Amino acid sequence: MKILIVNGPNLNLLGTREPEIYGSTSMENYMEKLKSEFPSHDLSYYQSNIEGEIIDRLQQDDFDALIINPGAYTHYSYAIADCLKNIQKSKIEVHISNIYKREEFRQKSVTAANTDAVLSGFGMHGYRLAIQSLTENK
Amino acid sequence: MKILIVNGPNLNLLGTREPEIYGSTSMENYMEKLKSEFPSHDLSYYQSNIEGEIIDRLQQDDFDALIINPGAYTHYSYAIADCLKNIQKSKIEVHISNIYKREEFRQKSVTAANTDAVLSGFGMHGYRLAIQSLTENK
Amino acid sequence: MKILIVNGPNLNLLGTREPEIYGSTSMENYMEKLKSEFPSHDLSYYQSNIEGEIIDRLQQDDFDALIINPGAYTHYSYAIADCLKNIQKSKIEVHISNIYKREEFRQKSVTAANTDAVLSGFGMHGYRLAIQSLTENK
Amino acid sequence: MKILIVNGPNLNLLGTREPEIYGSTSMENYMEKLKSEFPSHDLSYYQSNIEGEIIDRLQQDDFDALIINPGAYTHYSYAIADCLKNIQKSKIEVHISNIYKREEFRQKSVTAANTDAVLSGFGMHGYRLAIQSLTENK
Amino acid sequence: MKILIVNGPNLNLLGTREPEIYGSTSMENYMEKLKSEFPSHDLSYYQSNIEGEIIDRLQQDDFDALIINPGAYTHYSYAIADCLKNIQKSKIEVHISNIYKREEFRQKSVTAANTDAVLSGFGMHGYRLAIQSLTENK
Amino acid sequence: MKILIVNGPNLNLLGTREPEIYGSTSMENYMEKLKSEFPSHDLSYYQSNIEGEIIDRLQQDDFDALIINPGAYTHYSYAIADCLKNIQKSKIEVHISNIYKREEFRQKSVTAANTDAVLSGFGMHGYRLAIQSLTENK
Amino acid sequence: MKILIVNGPNLNLLGTREPEIYGSTSMENYMEKLKSEFPSHDLSYYQSNIEGEIIDRLQQDDFDALIINPGAYTHYSYAIADCLKNIQKSKIEVHISNIYKREEFRQKSVTAANTDAVLSGFGMHGYRLAIQSLTENK
Amino acid sequence: MKILIVNGPNLNLLGTREPEIYGSTSMENYMEKLKSEFPSHDLSYYQSNIEGEIIDRLQQDDFDALIINPGAYTHYSYAIADCLKNIQKSKIEVHISNIYKREEFRQKSVTAANTDAVLSGFGMHGYRLAIQSLTENK
Amino acid sequence: MKILIVNGPNLNLLGTREPEIYGSTSMENYMEKLKSEFPSHDLSYYQSNIEGEIIDRLQQDDFDALIINPGAYTHYSYAIADCLKNIQKSKIEVHISNIYKREEFRQKSVTAANTDAVLSGFGMHGYRLAIQSLTENK
Amino acid sequence: MKILIVNGPNLNLLGTREPEIYGSTSMENYMEKLKSEFPSHDLSYYQSNIEGEIIDRLQQDDFDALIINPGAYTHYSYAIADCLKNIQKSKIEVHISNIYKREEFRQKSVTAANTDAVLSGFGMHGYRLAIQSLTENK
Amino acid sequence: MKILIVNGPNLNLLGTREPEIYGSTSMENYMEKLKSEFPSHDLSYYQSNIEGEIIDRLQQDDFDALIINPGAYTHYSYAIADCLKNIQKSKIEVHISNIYKREEFRQKSVTAANTDAVLSGFGMHGYRLAIQSLTENK
Amino acid sequence: MKILIVNGPNLNLLGTREPEIYGSTSMENYMEKLKSEFPSHDLSYYQSNIEGEIIDRLQQDDFDALIINPGAYTHYSYAIADCLKNIQKSKIEVHISNIYKREEFRQKSVTAANTDAVLSGFGMHGYRLAIQSLTENK
Repeated sequence: MKILIVNGPNLNLLGTREPEIYGSTSMENYMEKLKSEFPSHDLSYYQSNIEGEIIDRLQQDDFDALIINPGAYTHYSYAIADCLKNIQKSKIEVHISNIYKREEFRQKSVTAANTDAVLSGFGMHGYRLAIQSLTENK
Repeated sequence: MKILIVNGPNLNLLGTREPEIYGSTSMENYMEKLKSEFPSHDLSYYQSNIEGEIIDRLQQDDFDALIINPGAYTHYSYAIADCLKNIQKSKIEVHISNIYKREEFRQKSVTAANTDAVLSGFGMHGYRLAIQSLTENK
Repeated sequence: MKILIVNGPNLNLLGTREPEIYGSTSMENYMEKLKSEFPSHDLSYYQSNIEGEIIDRLQQDDFDALIINPGAYTHYSYAIADCLKNIQKSKIEVHISNIYKREEFRQKSVTAANTDAVLSGFGMHGYRLAIQSLTENK
Repeated sequence: MKILIVNGPNLNLLGTREPEIYGSTSMENYMEKLKSEFPSHDLSYYQSNIEGEIIDRLQQDDFDALIINPGAYTHYSYAIADCLKNIQKSKIEVHISNIYKREEFRQKSVTAANTDAVLSGFGMHGYRLAIQSLTENK
Repeated sequence: MKILIVNGPNLNLLGTREPEIYGSTSMENYMEKLKSEFPSHDLSYYQSNIEGEIIDRLQQDDFDALIINPGAYTHYSYAIADCLKNIQKSKIEVHISNIYKREEFRQKSVTAANTDAVLSGFGMHGYRLAIQSLTENK
Repeated sequence: MKILIVNGPNLNLLGTREPEIYGSTSMENYMEKLKSEFPSHDLSYYQSNIEGEIIDRLQQDDFDALIINPGAYTHYSYAIADCLKNIQKSKIEVHISNIYKREEFRQKSVTAANTDAVLSGFGMHGYRLAIQSLTENK
Repeated sequence: MKILIVNGPNLNLLGTREPEIYGSTSMENYMEKLKSEFPSHDLSYYQSNIEGEIIDRLQQDDFDALIINPGAYTHYSYAIADCLKNIQKSKIEVHISNIYKREEFRQKSVTAANTDAVLSGFGMHGYRLAIQSLTENK
Repeated sequence: MKILIVNGPNLNLLGTREPEIYGSTSMENYMEKLKSEFPSHDLSYYQSNIEGEIIDRLQQDDFDALIINPGAYTHYSYAIADCLKNIQKSKIEVHISNIYKREEFRQKSVTAANTDAVLSGFGMHGYRLAIQSLTENK
Repeated sequence: MKILIVNGPNLNLLGTREPEIYGSTSMENYMEKLKSEFPSHDLSYYQSNIEGEIIDRLQQDDFDALIINPGAYTHYSYAIADCLKNIQKSKIEVHISNIYKREEFRQKSVTAANTDAVLSGFGMHGYRLAIQSLTENK
Repeated sequence: MKILIVNGPNLNLLGTREPEIYGSTSMENYMEKLKSEFPSHDLSYYQSNIEGEIIDRLQQDDFDALIINPGAYTHYSYAIADCLKNIQKSKIEVHISNIYKREEFRQKSVTAANTDAVLSGFGMHGYRLAIQSLTENK
Repeated sequence: MKILIVNGPNLNLLGTREPEIYGSTSMENYMEKLKSEFPSHDLSYYQSNIEGEIIDRLQQDDFDALIINPGAYTHYSYAIADCLKNIQKSKIEVHISNIYKREEFRQKSVTAANTDAVLSGFGMHGYRLAIQSLTENK
Repeated sequence: MKILIVNGPNLNLLGTREPEIYGSTSMENYMEKLKSEFPSHDLSYYQSNIEGEIIDRLQQDDFDALIINPGAYTHYSYAIADCLKNIQKSKIEVHISNIYKREEFRQKSVTAANTDAVLSGFGMHGYRLAIQSLTENK
């Protein structure tokens, strides 16, 4: 299974940004870990701080399943939301921190309704759980 | 690890209630499946339609980790929220359907901020993912 | 026709509670009157102050039609609302007083959308009208 | 008993307008049916699409009881509401469909507080129930 | 000076409608009194319950000054408000009762911003004060 | 093609009313111009200041396509909105000025969702564009 | 009749402050004019920029009628509102400009409900009309 | 004097629950202390986590005065509020913490308007003050 | 213990102002009563209608504990709230009437979060309870 | 006349994206059609998913008239709105679907007030109507 | 240049009040520092806790430029806002702390729109920057 | 000291864009002026219309202090806000115009809480004041 993992703005700083919230593992290291755990799947990773570039990437539609953490765009990017709506694949939204414990504006997701399922608060481990949800027999 | 799974109102009807939303597996059958998948853990299950009985059960505090689907109480039971706040164990909130795809009132969770993490939209499989998140090395 | 009449919190006090609003007839006496008026139908009555017990009762689903006055739960019990949604029978919501003449919070019903029809302001007579609506040729 | 039934805008099209919501019986036919069912009462009918004409009609005050379905005016006509407030007769508001199942704006009635009671969702049968509520011994 | 006095819905009932709020003098009698008090001015009176007829009357624009009590239309008739905006004459809005002592919805006037001045709470005497404001040397 | 053009309140004053917003051409003159431009179509025109008369006219349903400028009623007439919903013809809503540049209350249209398309800000020319949209090959 | 006129903050600058809104007559000059027009009444005047001093003055309760222009305090001084509520005399609220033509915050009066009547938009003439309303036979 | 003290959900954990907010004395111990301080009064205590059981208890109406801390139900239980409204005895609402220093949702009490007086922020001592308010000469 | 009691606007009229709400005892008399009841404490009293004078008085900070009834300033004086925040003594807010039974605007206290505890609805007796809460062994 | 047509995010997928809403013609094909229909005008086309690139393009200001469909950016891009405000050319906003029939968030346009006119719901044909509005004699 | 610096309520306590927010320098000391830094300008200082006294001072209008920190009055004193509007001099609003980092109510300034510019979060240094902005060549 | 100045969308047009609001100096010219005024500091400048490119630039974190004018992104870019939060340097937000005098949406800054201080309304001079605040002894 070809799985694309997409991270939004500031998530390129995972491991250094507010480690008390986001932990101290970089996404690149974590991707290595995930790839070795799921050798039978084809995992690829894309990150951009630019809203429209994320849309450009998603429109390539060259994957079987999508795991997306839109970062702050989660809360206002109707453009990404529209793009997700148009994708007919498995789609999971991941948030590293528990957004319910944070600022009011983070309680609202404009993208989640256009994905299949949402994970929030599992730290980096959330990406692994998303892969498991896609790949395990249920 | 002793894991308590608690379901709130109307979730005793899983398998028969609105199957297009909640699927056709009963919780009892699913618990059997989970127990066989996780033989090294002690899984127990409690369901009640009564808000205060759920609080009574949670106050027993006889578990290492909690997986809770408060059902409709998610959206207004400050009493359950207060109870959860007082529990110093791992706590995961699970919703079978993707609450972001449903009615406006289901977008608000008064309990989630008092749990560690939230899963929504994975169907019955959400309970298994919650157990995995508690029991796997990360 | 098997008709279940369910009353919510504080409605066990009909006849003594705020008689200027709710009148001075007790529900027990009124049920006797209704039974004698509709001898060909099987009328039963259930009252509880406990939200979850009302759900327990409704889930028995041992009736052809339901007449429910959820009392104050009308205005916030999404749990009862979810339960009503799952019942595939005729369902009528009754309020003794005209809720539009009362406090702001009573203008909102979270349960009514999951019933077929609503009656408000007919006093105890509302229960009889509900039965008539179910049993007469139209 | 002299009973006036008043219908508001677009209700002259009953029987042809959105039949999946309002049914396929015309109001004229239904009035015939009602008159034959309640021969001892004097039933009359008035319909207008014009808000102020409805007020003109109500101000004649030549009836013992009023059954009114203000249609869309229910939701914003403070002018009709003021007029109803001034009428010292039995007054019942009827809605053919269950307004709680429909658009948000239909949840608010500015007229209902100035009537005695409200019926919603009983189809055309709502008019008959209203008459029964006025004419039966209770 | 040619002064037109326009009253909106239900104000044809002045003298009989809710006398504890509106007093017991009819508008017709009061007009006679005003005419004898202001013999050098040409006072005329128009009342309608129909929003659009009020607009028809105002559009004749055959007066030097306008005194208008739009009744309940004060609170929602943007159509009358638009009409008033287009009139390049002295315009005074009158309310018999003090609208600030009454229901919430009466606190909002959509028409007042398109008149020159507003009087509220002087009873029938408000019409006379309005005439005085137009006709006296200041 | 039989096209009915309906204008709401105060639009009988086009050409004289607030010319800086609405221009200085009267609707009657403009209709002549339109008729000579579209000789193969049957254009008719109706205007009323009375909400219910507009509904009366629309209910005649004697046209193939409707172009409607509800004027101020756009913003609160659920009665006209209900009427439009029931018409199974091409329906276009036209506003002469750009309503987005004006008062807050003009940003909300309760009727537009029951038409096919909306034009705003093209001046009188908006009516011609609406006809073109109906009559040209696309 | 002993009439007290009270002006709130910044109204000591009448005649110089924003003359396009408030005119160019000082309150002192206008008081002279009023006294000569109403020689049989005892008119006195008080102004303060200090909310509590206005309350101090009102509590002296040494008048038969009160005319008050609370200036900006109109919109938030619940303290003056409470004070007015306790005064059992005729009370009229005056605003020089038409508050409906101005900023949003000026649309709300917290004091008006505790006066008998309100005048707005008559310029300085509003004070004279208020006196007339108190002293003329009606 | 027979005084009933009723505590709502999670208040059975007083002494152990969030001691930084609620202190470290258990309610049972505190009741002993109160009983010895007020030997001439008959103090009894009831606690339940179940909303409807609290109503059941209150409906017994076997007391001269009521001291109630509805816990989280304070903020949404219209059912308990309705029940309190029906009790014709002295009624005092107590909150251990100062609810104004806490979450937004705790600022709203739906029950307080149906009690005589409210105490908030005095710790366990609030119960004693409530008793003093009931029993001392004033 | 040196206890300062501060009353806000209009509370100098206690005993005469709206006696059905505030009772008929003057504050001066009540202070005498309190002084004789608590002879071992140093009670002083200050009242002003002027917001800033109350702040001036509080800033003297010459007391061990403060009992304050900010009157109407409770609901909007962020200036007094800021002042209270800066005082490192015991602070109790008292309201004579039960503010939950009164107007909507009285439900909001901007000062209470900067005091330790709040008493509402005990009449004049509230001041005594506040002193007891400060001076008794707990 | 040099006309620039600009499309915002996801509109590069016209013809394949949600064809039930947006139709099955690609924008490239439609541009060809438009160019052959309007040979005397110079039509150019730009699309980007990136908000700031759209601003970059607009700032070139190398056109006589602008037709813009900002896609989802319509609803929140104050940056594009600011850019449009600075352009002193004819500007028309086009939406393919009738935005009034869709989600709540699509009812708000932050850009429309900075264009001259708005077209919504004409399908691809909206672009042609926009060109006609710019190029025809009126 | 004659520059008046005005501080509102509680700002007389600078140096002692919440030093973690406002620093530990008193305003008097800071004024000395400013005077020695700007010897060619005439700096004067006024502080009051009383809203109306601030207005009294501002109305003297004996300065070339105004620097004002209205303290808590920033957030609700429309009286000071009206006063500022009437002053035709340079006017700068200063806040010591960054109001965007603090309570919700501090995000709203009712006075800032009537000043020329606003500084927030520079500590005491904000007053110096304000003077620099007034006195330097730009 | 290395100071980075960052400008957001449309601020590349300073000097030509809405000169009545933003003045007629270009940013490039102004930077030259600033560099000559502050020769001992290292000033650099970056502008982009693209939200994510601004984030890319900020993440380089190669400066001692940041002066940022996020333009329209101020009001909705939680992505830039998150980025600013992660920067542990001096950070000042600058707005050229006084945002309190402009549209409602400009009153809200989502970024300001993640900077140290805010300047608004000083024209281009605001950038110089920001540099002064960073570089002068205080």
